[in-house]
Amino acid sequence: MPEQVPGATIGVVGGGQLGRMLAEAASPLGVEVIVLDPTPDCPASPPAVGQIEAEFDDEAAIRDLATRVDVLTLEIELADPNGLEAAMEATGTPVHPAPSDLEMTRDKLREAEALADAGVPVADFRRVDDADSLQAAFDDLGSPLMLKARRGGYDGRGNAVVEDVPDAEDYFGTLDGLVAEQLVDFERELSVIGVRGEDEIDTFPVGENVHEAEILRETIVPARISDDVRDEALSVAHDVVSVMEGRGVFGIELLETPDGEVLANEIAPRPHNSGHYTIEGTVTSQFEQHVRAILGLPLGVTALRDTTAMANLLGTGDGSRPASLVGVEDALGMPGVHLHWYGKHEVRPLRKMGHVTATGEDAAAVLETVTAARDAIDFE
Amino acid sequence: MPEQVPGATIGVVGGGQLGRMLAEAASPLGVEVIVLDPTPDCPASPPAVGQIEAEFDDEAAIRDLATRVDVLTLEIELADPNGLEAAMEATGTPVHPAPSDLEMTRDKLREAEALADAGVPVADFRRVDDADSLQAAFDDLGSPLMLKARRGGYDGRGNAVVEDVPDAEDYFGTLDGLVAEQLVDFERELSVIGVRGEDEIDTFPVGENVHEAEILRETIVPARISDDVRDEALSVAHDVVSVMEGRGVFGIELLETPDGEVLANEIAPRPHNSGHYTIEGTVTSQFEQHVRAILGLPLGVTALRDTTAMANLLGTGDGSRPASLVGVEDALGMPGVHLHWYGKHEVRPLRKMGHVTATGEDAAAVLETVTAARDAIDFE
Repeated sequence: MPEQVPGATIGVVGGGQLGRMLAEAASPLGVEVIVLDPTPDCPASPPAVGQIEAEFDDEAAIRDLATRVDVLTLEIELADPNGLEAAMEATGTPVHPAPSDLEMTRDKLREAEALADAGVPVADFRRVDDADSLQAAFDDLGSPLMLKARRGGYDGRGNAVVEDVPDAEDYFGTLDGLVAEQLVDFERELSVIGVRGEDEIDTFPVGENVHEAEILRETIVPARISDDVRDEALSVAHDVVSVMEGRGVFGIELLETPDGEVLANEIAPRPHNSGHYTIEGTVTSQFEQHVRAILGLPLGVTALRDTTAMANLLGTGDGSRPASLVGVEDALGMPGVHLHWYGKHEVRPLRKMGHVTATGEDAAAVLETVTAARDAIDFE
Repeated sequence: MPEQVPGATIGVVGGGQLGRMLAEAASPLGVEVIVLDPTPDCPASPPAVGQIEAEFDDEAAIRDLATRVDVLTLEIELADPNGLEAAMEATGTPVHPAPSDLEMTRDKLREAEALADAGVPVADFRRVDDADSLQAAFDDLGSPLMLKARRGGYDGRGNAVVEDVPDAEDYFGTLDGLVAEQLVDFERELSVIGVRGEDEIDTFPVGENVHEAEILRETIVPARISDDVRDEALSVAHDVVSVMEGRGVFGIELLETPDGEVLANEIAPRPHNSGHYTIEGTVTSQFEQHVRAILGLPLGVTALRDTTAMANLLGTGDGSRPASLVGVEDALGMPGVHLHWYGKHEVRPLRKMGHVTATGEDAAAVLETVTAARDAIDFE
């Protein structure tokens, strides 16, 4: 049974930009959002109807949130699966995606194992606990390797390309709790937002992502790929979502190899930066889709409306300082440019502060517009 | 100079659905909204960051609002122009649209005079103060006449088609403060959202409206009219906006006569029900456009993205009762249907409770979808 819409309230563990855009998308449906976040006046706070100030793993606070809402969800992987599970058991409030989905995707080894078990193509990987198991991985998979912390990685933090064991020790300190992956030579980074509803799985269009220093800079949709690669990417994304036990949207990062293979790379059990283009780009946004999915409503249409490009507004400078923008007027004067500001009070280097989107017909023109808008905006 | 974006706060007199959708559109720009409305937990309250509970003509409350925001605007014609003017003078906070625009459009005689003076085509009209002036209007303009209260009309309330003086006395009681208009034989009711920015005037596409009992039921865009009528409608709308002294969007209702003339009928100095289709239908919505205009930012692109239809969800039944919806799941399962719920706690007959929108390629199919979605939803 779906929750009552309008009238339902969603509890979100995390109150960053994803929670903010979720609240913005929920409001037209008559759905209200309460967030749990330790930062006073967090980004999601203005459009949300309430905030519980607590750590993401504060079990009592999560239980308190559960008593005030119809369904619990999360927008940050730091959300504690045990706390969510306990809150669900104590209150009967459902949690989507499932705590087990969060548990699995928080651990890059378990994620790779689950995907491989389900027949989803992934880079060859080995569990690493110490120097011996790392050396065995080099022997099996070659050097250099992609070495990742099993937990706590985000935007490339906790990932490193390493040549040998001392190199890995330099970067990680300890060699316990890592996973080694064969280094994939790839043509493009792609991504698909997948969604699991009550009785249906669907996928959004394939996006093409440009990363620098392992942080997403731009997404262009449709991706400039062959029809075969597109079909393969959508098929892989569908299979990834099939592995999940709960409902909601999932951000699925993919790698296209030079011979047209598509590998699943990273899964986020939540709306994803590479899906922000959907707010203007697709019939239903990833945020509205997440609301629909977790409330058990029919999923919306995921079709692309126009060629769309998104560029992140990343913090500049050296230290932390109050966020004050210049150039917004210039950016908003460019044709079809939309600003999404996250309401963060402090800017720090490479911090995701907002994004801009543009839509149109021609990919090159749309990308030029959105990068010009991004470049017009700076922090004082 | 534009106000700081992100970071600006808008004060809105009125906290109904227009204020709600304004706050929803402001959030992505990093713009916050505080509303002034006498109803506790008014429709705009959840997405707004604050509400002042006061009457729309409470001068002290409007002044208090002015001290807390960067610009004042309104979403209801009951907003008091004198209170806005006084608040502007006392605090220096700008008001858009101008109090004079509100003063003019609140008075159907002054509105008709201002438009006629500017060369905008309107139905022939006469001022009516008493039985003699009404009889003179019948003599000049024929019978029946459209008779309107100069002030306080809304959704057809205060308008009547009358045959003679006794007929008018029956409906209005007093004959003071009325305006008589020649009854226009029209093919279609059209509307255009016009916008005045800092140095620019623009118009949204021409919509075709279906009214029943003088309440808007559906809007279809593009209107199914000839290119000549379209050009004329946009030209009339442009001329209407040129009459205005302040910035913002204006809802402009038009009548298409059988011989292809376009007459200006009613002007609303605010976002308008017939422009709700713009949320999904145009590159920039009327609500984002209003935010841009009143903050002195560049206007957004007004182009239509797809054929779009909107249907109002009107209250049913006899009396006032708690609003509880059935059929929303069915409606959201229809292709490309978007729900906009206004968060009103009580449903009353013909009260505007929400609307649904659908987009696509073919006008007939889109209209069929949106009316099916509307018809699927009912109040318990």
